[in-house]
Amino acid sequence: MKEEAEIKRICDEVIERIRPDDAERARVKAVTTRIINMINQKALELGIEAHAVSVGSTARNTWVHGETDIDIFIMFPEDVPEEDLKDNGLALAKSISDRYEERYASHPYIHAYFYDSEGRTEYEADLVPCFAVKDASALKSAVDRTPFHNGYIMERIHGLEDDVLLLKLFMMCLDIYGSELRRKGFSGYLCELLILNYSSFVELLLNASRWRYGERIDLEGKGKYKGEDPLIVIDPVDRNRNVAAAVSDYSFCRFIDAAREFLAQPQMSFFLPRVADPMSAEEFVKRVKRRGTEFVMVLFEAPEVVEDILFPQLRKAELSITDMIERDGFKVYGSDVAVEGGKAFLLFELLLWSLPRLKKHTGPPVTSKYHSEQFKDIYASTHPIFIDDGRYAVEVERRYTDVVSLLKNELMSCSLGKDVSESIGRGCEVLRNEEIRFVAGIGYFFRCYFRGI
Amino acid sequence: MKEEAEIKRICDEVIERIRPDDAERARVKAVTTRIINMINQKALELGIEAHAVSVGSTARNTWVHGETDIDIFIMFPEDVPEEDLKDNGLALAKSISDRYEERYASHPYIHAYFYDSEGRTEYEADLVPCFAVKDASALKSAVDRTPFHNGYIMERIHGLEDDVLLLKLFMMCLDIYGSELRRKGFSGYLCELLILNYSSFVELLLNASRWRYGERIDLEGKGKYKGEDPLIVIDPVDRNRNVAAAVSDYSFCRFIDAAREFLAQPQMSFFLPRVADPMSAEEFVKRVKRRGTEFVMVLFEAPEVVEDILFPQLRKAELSITDMIERDGFKVYGSDVAVEGGKAFLLFELLLWSLPRLKKHTGPPVTSKYHSEQFKDIYASTHPIFIDDGRYAVEVERRYTDVVSLLKNELMSCSLGKDVSESIGRGCEVLRNEEIRFVAGIGYFFRCYFRGI
Repeated sequence: MKEEAEIKRICDEVIERIRPDDAERARVKAVTTRIINMINQKALELGIEAHAVSVGSTARNTWVHGETDIDIFIMFPEDVPEEDLKDNGLALAKSISDRYEERYASHPYIHAYFYDSEGRTEYEADLVPCFAVKDASALKSAVDRTPFHNGYIMERIHGLEDDVLLLKLFMMCLDIYGSELRRKGFSGYLCELLILNYSSFVELLLNASRWRYGERIDLEGKGKYKGEDPLIVIDPVDRNRNVAAAVSDYSFCRFIDAAREFLAQPQMSFFLPRVADPMSAEEFVKRVKRRGTEFVMVLFEAPEVVEDILFPQLRKAELSITDMIERDGFKVYGSDVAVEGGKAFLLFELLLWSLPRLKKHTGPPVTSKYHSEQFKDIYASTHPIFIDDGRYAVEVERRYTDVVSLLKNELMSCSLGKDVSESIGRGCEVLRNEEIRFVAGIGYFFRCYFRGI
Repeated sequence: MKEEAEIKRICDEVIERIRPDDAERARVKAVTTRIINMINQKALELGIEAHAVSVGSTARNTWVHGETDIDIFIMFPEDVPEEDLKDNGLALAKSISDRYEERYASHPYIHAYFYDSEGRTEYEADLVPCFAVKDASALKSAVDRTPFHNGYIMERIHGLEDDVLLLKLFMMCLDIYGSELRRKGFSGYLCELLILNYSSFVELLLNASRWRYGERIDLEGKGKYKGEDPLIVIDPVDRNRNVAAAVSDYSFCRFIDAAREFLAQPQMSFFLPRVADPMSAEEFVKRVKRRGTEFVMVLFEAPEVVEDILFPQLRKAELSITDMIERDGFKVYGSDVAVEGGKAFLLFELLLWSLPRLKKHTGPPVTSKYHSEQFKDIYASTHPIFIDDGRYAVEVERRYTDVVSLLKNELMSCSLGKDVSESIGRGCEVLRNEEIRFVAGIGYFFRCYFRGI
């Protein structure tokens, strides 16, 4: 088949472009070794019982050229108190870097900057304290699992690194790479497991093009995971865990679709980032007019929490507000959330945003004597009661006849998540169509919205 | 209880008003006997093997004063050919009346006018040819059952006639008396069976106020009927038949509700016909404006068929058109049908009657490879395809953005029933709000609509 040859040609060309060359590998290795040595030396000096190890894609030679993230884990004995691990771990990490930031995922860690020995290239490294547990199923914290992942992959991945790189870039260009809750895509570890399972990038695509919802991959054949996710990849180091738990329906479908498309019509464009201009306010207003829909945006100060905490709350708020809007009789066509320049946005596109004042309020079935009497007690003196489809009903006045007034008054009654709720409680704006302000980043957001929907 | 005394007082007063007095009974009996004699005499003269019997409420003394319908059945031997029954039966009936109309239910019959012996009061009589079958479950036509009903009731109803009269008037004032498909209420025979079963009007009301959906009454305890109707009253002369099959959900609920209301607050008004002025066009327009809804009426020549054929078709059309309107994304709040002055109407009140041009067309799940390929074959070259909730989707243009244009163009694609479809096919008008013309009867129709909903 001519597609096969074309796929090979494209993959070869891409690999040449993204595979770090020997010099790059040597530089990264040198920096990594230097950091590890500095930490171990410092630990010795300070009498801290800990040692550093290199994990992640730079340890496994599976990083994409230009995407060098050095991960160093500082391992403490299991019986060290959590407080000591945190204090000593962070102190160690800070002591060896000139420039760093303290960050927080499930645990605090240090994000630091280092130059290579020639002082030419700057590298970024995450320095993460963790416990050296005996077994990956007996963790003290989520990060303790990483060294086990690292061991599992390093023992097996040799010879498949190019396929991992192709898969990672393919995912990046689809915008489904990374398990952060903002993206809900495929983590690097998951990419490596998929390649291990199918033995090559192309074999994976061939299989993925036939994946069904709930597809199950179990490299060690011992999985006990029972959840209902689109994709289930049993963690070889913890049989109760699905490595693909973060993969959303959308990321799952997007990958299947792209696999089919690439196999049917292989093109280099699958390995090039999609570039798009931000949308201008003028273009937005023109688009809205042409669509005939109503855009309503809830705009508020982004709570100061990390994305993995903020995004689930924003998605929860999006769902809860959509429910409220539709329960009130309006119709949502699409929605999305974003955080840009310190502001958080909830966007709703509406097919129906205005309704007559009149509303039918349906009561109990006429045959239900007890409830009928209660209903009549409430309404008989104020409303004409009629029978509709076997039930009592009255005509009442709709409280909100348009979505903007509904949102302005009832936002706080939705399940918004703690931080989002507090921020909205301190104040928010509800803007429609041309009132929506094109602050930083919003143009890209709308470009994606109109492409995605 | 003071309600009990009040109920008795009201019922006694009503009975005095609606029970035909001895003179009226004698007059009706005389006219009936005269008609029967004329038919039998004529049959003898013409050598037709047939004889007349009196059936229905005048035969059983259960007619409401002023509602005198004389029913005479002309009975033919079972082995007479159907054609002969029709020809000879109608000929006999016509031969004895000066003024009559030929009418048609399931079979043709003669509706004739007779004066009493003093020539003072005019009576109307239905003269219906039927077969004298041996057994009510071995009918040759639906009317053959009537003489059996008559026999069953006449043997048992003596002493309960007043309760039947109260029940009939109670039903009439609720507008749920009569099993015609226009009304879908309680037939006279059904009223009599209910009284036989519960032994009095008040006992019936007490029981009805606790009826559940699917309530089953079986006087002879031999019922085999399996249908799922709101009310099931096994026909004592045909255990496979539900006498209450025509009772709609609405009539069922209306009766239950009125039973409870009357027992809780007995008032004479339950036995007085509800009078209402017709609604004027001005009042209608004002009402519509206040409700904020949109009224759309489909107006066409009423097909020339009897109501029992026309109304099921109109109800079918009402349902089918409602389905189409909602399938297209609009929202129906209420609907009704009517026939007045040679015109038929289908009325729809809409909460949502106009939509943006934009429409999401959802395709197959992404995981369904075969259907996905078909969907892409159709749309890929013309529409941007996106993934929405695990399915492929495209944005298409809505063909009709308002209900009036939808109805003007797509009415004929609905299931309308043969005669309605033919009439609408010859032409119809689709009118909205103030365009709706207040032709004869429409004012009453709207008065009922705004009361009923």
